[in-house]
Amino acid sequence: MTSLFDGALNHLEPSSLTAFAGNDLIRDSEHRDEETVAAALKTEGAHIFAFCEGNLILKHDGQIVDPLFSRYELVDLLPDWDETVLLGHRRNGEPRLAVPLKVPEESLASHFKVVDGRTLYRDELMDEALLGEFAQAASLIRWNRDNRFCGRCGGAMELRIGGYKRACVSCDHMIFPRTDPVVIMLVIDEARDLCLLGRGPHFAPGMYSCLAGFLEPGETMENAVRRETLEEAGIKVGRVRYHASQPWPMPHSLMIGCYGQALNTEIHRDEKELEDCRWFTREETLEVLERPGTNGKASPPKGAIAHRLMRDWVERKL
Amino acid sequence: MTSLFDGALNHLEPSSLTAFAGNDLIRDSEHRDEETVAAALKTEGAHIFAFCEGNLILKHDGQIVDPLFSRYELVDLLPDWDETVLLGHRRNGEPRLAVPLKVPEESLASHFKVVDGRTLYRDELMDEALLGEFAQAASLIRWNRDNRFCGRCGGAMELRIGGYKRACVSCDHMIFPRTDPVVIMLVIDEARDLCLLGRGPHFAPGMYSCLAGFLEPGETMENAVRRETLEEAGIKVGRVRYHASQPWPMPHSLMIGCYGQALNTEIHRDEKELEDCRWFTREETLEVLERPGTNGKASPPKGAIAHRLMRDWVERKL
Repeated sequence: MTSLFDGALNHLEPSSLTAFAGNDLIRDSEHRDEETVAAALKTEGAHIFAFCEGNLILKHDGQIVDPLFSRYELVDLLPDWDETVLLGHRRNGEPRLAVPLKVPEESLASHFKVVDGRTLYRDELMDEALLGEFAQAASLIRWNRDNRFCGRCGGAMELRIGGYKRACVSCDHMIFPRTDPVVIMLVIDEARDLCLLGRGPHFAPGMYSCLAGFLEPGETMENAVRRETLEEAGIKVGRVRYHASQPWPMPHSLMIGCYGQALNTEIHRDEKELEDCRWFTREETLEVLERPGTNGKASPPKGAIAHRLMRDWVERKL
Repeated sequence: MTSLFDGALNHLEPSSLTAFAGNDLIRDSEHRDEETVAAALKTEGAHIFAFCEGNLILKHDGQIVDPLFSRYELVDLLPDWDETVLLGHRRNGEPRLAVPLKVPEESLASHFKVVDGRTLYRDELMDEALLGEFAQAASLIRWNRDNRFCGRCGGAMELRIGGYKRACVSCDHMIFPRTDPVVIMLVIDEARDLCLLGRGPHFAPGMYSCLAGFLEPGETMENAVRRETLEEAGIKVGRVRYHASQPWPMPHSLMIGCYGQALNTEIHRDEKELEDCRWFTREETLEVLERPGTNGKASPPKGAIAHRLMRDWVERKL
């Protein structure tokens, strides 16, 4: 019997191979109240990610790097408990939380290290599950930090249910976490067996990657792929095929990875967005992926969805 | 030669068959400045959607229903030109804009009709292209309206580049339009050839539809489908297959439609979210879709992505 779910994907789910996708917490964000959060914080085994000005704090002691704090380890770092985020619970019942610190970065002792999300995954500082929990934490910490005041009336907003809601103390307006969909696409010229890659002005020398852009209000995924590719490269896209998605916590995006069918060949590059844009053979694409040099500086690193789209095309895993 | 884009989809792109997907404007939102917007407003042929407290104003004169105003037709309705949204340009060069009115709804003359997005598409009051432009307009008008003040400092925020950015006059913080990804899924029990449908407590009698929920920060699409289905119905989902997406301007979502592979059969319904949830045969699903009665009241209407997922499964168009 053929299955609806056969065919294309007899491999591992491509989304599961992207960085930040390994979060396995039971979130239960729709079935919580303030007491759930207070109870979680008091539970034995509760572990907390600590953020300083939006970046993660790691304890590092020689070789060991540890991002998880107990409540007591945080006392001297001025945690802002009113802004506590409850991520969820691990399968063994341990709560996972996140809290912003009020201590300035320059006052932190030398056995603390401050890192951003890009460094965390490029330098492979944490395993996949922790990295996934970090992604959820970083997105929520940032969203709560950006919404201290009500957009409708300017009143103070308070965090509710572990950072999954904010409510205005003046007008009662409620808001919920935001996630920004971004389309990222490998556009394929099937007749010539080539793919379209570009480089931004700030890329390391030799680095090329997929084109990408924010999905706009009132747009389907497929139309966003077509619009962005036409705007950035002057290439018209026909059919679009979804491949994989990735949480991208810088600050709170959802990367939606697609293949697009090129309908023309002549590139008209948007010179503001791209420093170069050209067609690559499979061999040239593989060369970009396997370029020597620090992981993720001269090529999209393994966990990046751009890497996934490029490699799965090169290896015909579609 | 086989194509990457063959196989699954030798039909029309399913996303193109959903309501609100027909927007064909050239948006060029990344290449505008304040003068682009001022110039568009002065251009001959500029047409404007007018919103009153978040709903659309239609001119209706007997049989004809018209949502497009010239600048001069709006003068008496107190348009808030500082909050003008530039949607883009039509292929013939005509600008399309949207503006909120300061006039209260009860002061509108009787030849104006105030409608919400659901009514517009259920009652088929506009063609697909206009409905798509409306979706973009409604999403942007609502987002701008919800962000008059800065979330970081509480200062006043001003609209920029036709509603695609807001900037704080006090701290210079900038924000960009938001689109909320929602997963909506038809979960299939392949061994028994059944699909999983549920009904919310506010559904019309007999109405059943796909399960759905907001994608959370730090989650892939596939994991969101699995989490929501498990939370709402107690059904574990294995593989997930993307089918179609739809802009949903109530207020500014992106519906991401997927099929999910059921791994168990016994339903444990979330009683807060669902009044009923059960397995349907193809025949029963078709019966839900074709139930007599007002379009969209007793069944998901044609343009709804739930309708698309259900019908394409019933008709084996996958």
